[in-house]
Amino acid sequence: MSGAEPRRDTKWWGWGDPETTASLPAAALEHLDGRIGLGAGPISALSDVQLPDPLPLPDRLLAACGSDAVTVGREDRIRHATGQSYPDLVRLRGGVLDEAPDAILVPPDGPAVVRILEACSDAAVAVVPYGGGTSVVGGVAPLRGAHERVVALDLCRLRRSSVDRRSLIASLGPGLRGPEAEALLRREGLTLGHFPQSFGFGTIGGFAATRSAGQASSGYGRFDELVSSVAMATPIGELRTLETPHSAAGPSLRELALGSEGTLGVLTELSVRVREAPEARRYEGWILPGFEEGADAVRNLAQSDLLPDVVRLSDASESEISRLLSGARGPRKLGADLYLRVRGRREGCVLIVGWEGERDAVARRRALGAAALRRAGGVSLGRAPGRAWERGRYVGPYIRDALLDVGVMAETLETSHTWARLMSLYTAVGSAIEASLAKQGTPPIVMCHLSHAYRDGASLYFTFIARQREGSELGQWRAVKVAASEAIVAAGGTITHHHAVGRDHAPYMRAELGDVGLEALRAVKEGLDPSGIMNPGKLLPTNG
Amino acid sequence: MSGAEPRRDTKWWGWGDPETTASLPAAALEHLDGRIGLGAGPISALSDVQLPDPLPLPDRLLAACGSDAVTVGREDRIRHATGQSYPDLVRLRGGVLDEAPDAILVPPDGPAVVRILEACSDAAVAVVPYGGGTSVVGGVAPLRGAHERVVALDLCRLRRSSVDRRSLIASLGPGLRGPEAEALLRREGLTLGHFPQSFGFGTIGGFAATRSAGQASSGYGRFDELVSSVAMATPIGELRTLETPHSAAGPSLRELALGSEGTLGVLTELSVRVREAPEARRYEGWILPGFEEGADAVRNLAQSDLLPDVVRLSDASESEISRLLSGARGPRKLGADLYLRVRGRREGCVLIVGWEGERDAVARRRALGAAALRRAGGVSLGRAPGRAWERGRYVGPYIRDALLDVGVMAETLETSHTWARLMSLYTAVGSAIEASLAKQGTPPIVMCHLSHAYRDGASLYFTFIARQREGSELGQWRAVKVAASEAIVAAGGTITHHHAVGRDHAPYMRAELGDVGLEALRAVKEGLDPSGIMNPGKLLPTNG
Repeated sequence: MSGAEPRRDTKWWGWGDPETTASLPAAALEHLDGRIGLGAGPISALSDVQLPDPLPLPDRLLAACGSDAVTVGREDRIRHATGQSYPDLVRLRGGVLDEAPDAILVPPDGPAVVRILEACSDAAVAVVPYGGGTSVVGGVAPLRGAHERVVALDLCRLRRSSVDRRSLIASLGPGLRGPEAEALLRREGLTLGHFPQSFGFGTIGGFAATRSAGQASSGYGRFDELVSSVAMATPIGELRTLETPHSAAGPSLRELALGSEGTLGVLTELSVRVREAPEARRYEGWILPGFEEGADAVRNLAQSDLLPDVVRLSDASESEISRLLSGARGPRKLGADLYLRVRGRREGCVLIVGWEGERDAVARRRALGAAALRRAGGVSLGRAPGRAWERGRYVGPYIRDALLDVGVMAETLETSHTWARLMSLYTAVGSAIEASLAKQGTPPIVMCHLSHAYRDGASLYFTFIARQREGSELGQWRAVKVAASEAIVAAGGTITHHHAVGRDHAPYMRAELGDVGLEALRAVKEGLDPSGIMNPGKLLPTNG
Repeated sequence: MSGAEPRRDTKWWGWGDPETTASLPAAALEHLDGRIGLGAGPISALSDVQLPDPLPLPDRLLAACGSDAVTVGREDRIRHATGQSYPDLVRLRGGVLDEAPDAILVPPDGPAVVRILEACSDAAVAVVPYGGGTSVVGGVAPLRGAHERVVALDLCRLRRSSVDRRSLIASLGPGLRGPEAEALLRREGLTLGHFPQSFGFGTIGGFAATRSAGQASSGYGRFDELVSSVAMATPIGELRTLETPHSAAGPSLRELALGSEGTLGVLTELSVRVREAPEARRYEGWILPGFEEGADAVRNLAQSDLLPDVVRLSDASESEISRLLSGARGPRKLGADLYLRVRGRREGCVLIVGWEGERDAVARRRALGAAALRRAGGVSLGRAPGRAWERGRYVGPYIRDALLDVGVMAETLETSHTWARLMSLYTAVGSAIEASLAKQGTPPIVMCHLSHAYRDGASLYFTFIARQREGSELGQWRAVKVAASEAIVAAGGTITHHHAVGRDHAPYMRAELGDVGLEALRAVKEGLDPSGIMNPGKLLPTNG
C-alpha cells in the first residue's frame, strides 16, 4: 500500500505538527484565570477513541479505485472523521466520534477521481472530498445524507505541478499543501502569495473549494482571484474551464466551482496566477486611537490605492490580549505604552501593515502609506511588532489547543460588510457573542480585527474565549454560534468571508442567498450530481 | 402613453445619434478603393421595411404589465428587431426583417418585471430583455424558441440611482445609459470608469448581462469586477445577492447572473463600485518596433504592476489604417514617420496608453511606465496621438456605417489568451479571416489590437474590412465568422473576451464549456426558467 496511503504526519487530536505546541505565558494564564477562569481539558488516548464500525464497500467501487488505494485502518478513519473546528476538537478530545468514513480512498490522479465518482454515483455511496482536513466549519464531516455508506476521498496524491513562466501561471495539483506549493514555485523564483492561517496544512484544492483568503490577500489577491482555470471531476464527468485570462462567454463556471466545497465535484487541477517572489518585505506596527478611527484610516488607504499587501487592525481588546499572549515586552510594549501615555488614553488599536515586492516599489508604497497613516492620527511602532506578528502568524491554532488544555474554549468567526455598515456589524456581533456566553455563566473575552480591506468594505474577524462549560461544551458552542450567526444575518453581513459554509453555516444559506438563489444552487447540484453523493449536508441547508 | 414609451432617439438603421455621421477622408477612400475596392450600399426607407405582423398578447400579460406600458407600434417593433451586429445592419439596410417582437413592454420598475416574467412564464411567451440594443452578437434578436409569441422587455424606465459615498458604491438602474450614469455620478464627484465603445447608448444592465469591458478597464476594472451585487428578476421570483465586498458563502451567484445575457432573468438593480472622478488624465502615444515586441512591453508593464489605465497596442496594419482613417497629419504622422526612418523600418506599432487619477499618482505612474516602455525599445510620440485617440474613441461604429455606405463590410471580433499562447492565436485568427475572405474573392484588410492586458494574458481585438459581396452579404459574413471562430477554438482562445455570446457565438459554447459545463448552465436555466421563456436561442447552443 506504499505510495497510496493518506498522510499521518499531524496530530490526530488537534492542530498541525505533533512536535509543536504553544505555551501560554504565565502572565497570560494569570490574566485569563482572573477574567474568565481556567479549568482542565484532558485528551483521550488514540486507542480509546470510539467510532462506528465501517461498512464494506461494493466491489465495483473498489475496482474503480484500485484496491491498493483504499484504506479502512482505524487511525486513518479517525483522522478523516473531523476537520479542525472547535466542536471537532471537543469531540476528538472527548474520544467519541459518532461519524466516521467507512473507508478512505486515495486515488492516484484526476482520471481515477472521475472513475470513482461514477462508481460511487452508481452505487449510491456518499463522497467527502478531503484535502488538508483543516476546515473550521465542518466541511469534511463524514455525513452520509440519504446514503448508507460514506467514503473520504483523500487527494494527497494529486500533487503534480508545472509552470508557464511567461504567463506567470502555475498548474498545481489539489493535494499540494501550502508550503509544498510555495517550495515548488520558489525554485522558479515565484510565489503564490497565499498565506492563510491554515497555510502549513491546508491544500490548494481546499483553498479553491472554500474561497480561501490569506493574510496577504489584500496584495496578492484572494484565492478565488488567483485561480485562472479549474478541472473538476463530477459524477457526470469532468468540467474544465478554458485557461484564458478572461472571457465573456456566459456566466463564470470557474466561479461556480470555486466555493462549491465538494458538493458539486472534486477539483482535480488548478491553474493559478503567480508572481515573482518578493525582493523585499517590510512589516511594521502602528497604533491608532480607536477601532473606528483605525477603520477609517484603512478605508482611506483602500480607497486611495495605497493598501498595503497585509493589513490587520485589531480592536482594543485584541490589541491587549495579543500583547499578553505573545508575552510582548521590549520595544513593542514600550512603544504602545508610550503612545497611550502621550495620548492620555487607556487603550489603542494596533495595526499591522506589510509590503512585499520589488525593493523600490516597497519603499515607494510604504512612504505613501505611512504618510496617510500619520495623517489619520496613527503613530508608528516600528518594525518590531511587524516581525513579532510574522513570527506568530501561524500559531493561532496551536494556541487554541493550549487554551483547550486549560479548559478554555477559543473560537473564531468572520464576516464582511460595506464601510457604511461595518461598525454596526462590529457592535452587533460582538454584543451577541458577549451576551450569549454571559447568559451561559461563562462571560467571554471578545476580540476582533479588521482585515481584507476593499475599496467598498472589509471583513471582520472575531475571536472569543471563555471558560468551557464542562459536560456541555458543544451546547455552549452551539448557543453562541447561533447568537453570532443570527446577529450577522440581521445586520446584513455575509455568514462567512473566508472560512466557507461547511456544515456549520449551512442553516444560514437561505438568509444569504434567498429562495431563488438556493434554487439556482440546488439545480446545478442536481444537474452535476444527480444521485446526491457529493459531500452531503454541506453548503446547502438540509431542509431546503 | 407618455413616460411609458421606449426610446426613439437613435438611428433606426445604424449606430447612434441621428445627427452624427463619420466621413471618410478622401485619401482613405482612395487607399481602400485601391486595396479592396468600393461599391455602394443603399438604405431602405423606414416606411418600406418589411416585418411580420404582430400576434396579439394574452390579456393576463397585458394586465401584469399595465396596458399603458405596452406598445405594438411599427417603428418600435423595427427598433427592437435587431441589435447592432454587422448582419443586423445588413438586414436593416436591406429592409427585410424576418423576425420582430410582437410587442414591446416598458415596465416602470423591478416588481413589474417580476410580475411580467411570471405572466409570460404562465402564458409561454418568450421574453427578450432589451437595454441599449447595442449588442454586436445578436443578443437581442427576437427569437421565439419553442413559443408562439415573443416580446421585447425594454428596461429604459428602470433608471433609479443612489450613492453610498462612504463605501463608494452606487446603486444604478439597469436602464441607465453610460452617459446618464456618469452624469449622475459626476454630480457627486465620482466616476464609474466604464467606457466601452458602446458607452453612449449601452446600458448598465446590458454591461452587466454581457460582462462588458471598457477602454479603461485595465485601470478601473471590467464591468463584472465593478458589480458588487445584483437583483435579478426570474420567472420563479427575484434573486438578490448580499451587498458585501466579498463572501465565501458558496459559489458566486453574482458571477452566475453576470454574463447570463437575459437567459436566466432580467437584471433589475445593480450595485457598482465607483471611484473619485480623476483629478488628472494623461493619454499619449508610443511606437514599438513590432507587435510581438509591443506585446512583450505590455506584458512587462502588467507583470510589474505598472499597467496604465488604458492600454491599446495596434498591430502594423491597424496602426497604418488608423492613421489613414483619422486623416492624421501633423505631429502624429511626423512622429511615426521619423521613428520609422530612424529605425530603418517600414512599419511600427502604435501603443496608446492613458493614466487617470490623482495628479501625483498619474505623474508617478506615468514616469515608471514610460521608463519601462523606453527600456522595451518604445519611442514616445507625445500626447497628440493620445488626444486624437480620445477624440475618436467612440467613432468606430459610425465609421462602420460610413464604410457600409460605400459597400464595404466592417466587422470586429475579440478573444483572449495567456501570454505564452497569444501570438499563435494572433496568427491563426488573422490568417483564417484573410483566407476566408480571399477565397470568397473579397480579400480583406485585417487589423488587430491588443488591449485589456492582465498579468497572465491579454485580449486580441480584430477588425477586418472587405468589399461586400453584393447579394450575398450575409453568406459572406457567415463564412468568415465561422472561419475566425473555428480558428479561435482550435487555438484554445475564448470565443469572446467582452462582446458576449448572444446568438452568433452560441454554436461555439460547447467547445468553450464542454458537455459538463453546458449541463451546469442548462440545469440552472431549467431551475430558474422552467418554461424556457428567457431570451431563447442565446448563449446556449440550440441543439444542446
